[in-house]
Amino acid sequence: MTNTSHKVAFPVEKARRYLEPGPIVLVSSCWQGERNVMTLGWHTVMAFSPSLLGCVISAGNHSHELVRRSGECVINLPTTELTDTVIGIGNSSGAEVDKFERFDLTSEPAEQVAAPRIRECHAHFECRLVDDSLVERYDFFIWEVVSAQVAQTPAHPQTLHYTGDGVFMVAGEAIDRRSQFLPEML
Amino acid sequence: MTNTSHKVAFPVEKARRYLEPGPIVLVSSCWQGERNVMTLGWHTVMAFSPSLLGCVISAGNHSHELVRRSGECVINLPTTELTDTVIGIGNSSGAEVDKFERFDLTSEPAEQVAAPRIRECHAHFECRLVDDSLVERYDFFIWEVVSAQVAQTPAHPQTLHYTGDGVFMVAGEAIDRRSQFLPEML
Repeated sequence: MTNTSHKVAFPVEKARRYLEPGPIVLVSSCWQGERNVMTLGWHTVMAFSPSLLGCVISAGNHSHELVRRSGECVINLPTTELTDTVIGIGNSSGAEVDKFERFDLTSEPAEQVAAPRIRECHAHFECRLVDDSLVERYDFFIWEVVSAQVAQTPAHPQTLHYTGDGVFMVAGEAIDRRSQFLPEML
Repeated sequence: MTNTSHKVAFPVEKARRYLEPGPIVLVSSCWQGERNVMTLGWHTVMAFSPSLLGCVISAGNHSHELVRRSGECVINLPTTELTDTVIGIGNSSGAEVDKFERFDLTSEPAEQVAAPRIRECHAHFECRLVDDSLVERYDFFIWEVVSAQVAQTPAHPQTLHYTGDGVFMVAGEAIDRRSQFLPEML
């Protein structure tokens, strides 16, 4: 079980460790006193350094305007302990309800951005918008991770991976194949 | 175990079923008689219809020029049966070796593109390049899936999810939470 009360700084250029496997994440944002959180499965790592992430946040989502206007967000990593919460967040709108209150989430101040972190999550990636050139056409935002914090245990959090149709794949075992890699590929 | 000898057509607008969970994929390509295959973990679904995918293929990869010049690729989905092959492909360069021969992969003609499919994989997503506006700056390609084929069993293939450092997370159990979703969110 994730010990979410104690997290440590994590190198931003290693964000792929948690995000490349493709988990559902919770994106938190705020703008002019309004805050929101949404589920997101359409994201990708784009570069190590600077640490870049790309993601699609549809204009139909209440968070779209909040992240666009503030130019900030926090990408939080939930685990299976939060499965019901993840589903609840994905099936409600921030236009109608404060999801932090509704789902009993603890909002914490982030280090580098005004958007809040969600304490109950395993890891946080604080992001600043660096490229909005594809927002109009594809709702595609490119972020730089400017600060990251992770829980120290477990080493391999049991993340949720969405397949559509209400079905999630849950992260299984980790297999270490380091010995088969060229040194320069590690 | 995947029955890779028999695949059926799959609706392109449902590509997220296999790709949103974030698996490592094998990208096959060809250009002017040269073919190649590479491993890829930096990809995201971008739209349902047209079915769009975005991915980062570094200019340092031999495949970069092949996919850029041909404007085509096939995104193939390997499972844990191919773990050694996936690692071998990721740790060698198509500039030096024909990876289909080296790794004993069966090249099959695709339906809509000249790039070959890899028979040993669970699913194939045939892609055409629709937007290269971020290739110069981020090596980011946006593809339209124009045809897809999948093996019918197993329903939940055991995919590989890369975390860096030679460690993969293997897809675990599937959990069906359809009953908790609003009808319009399915």
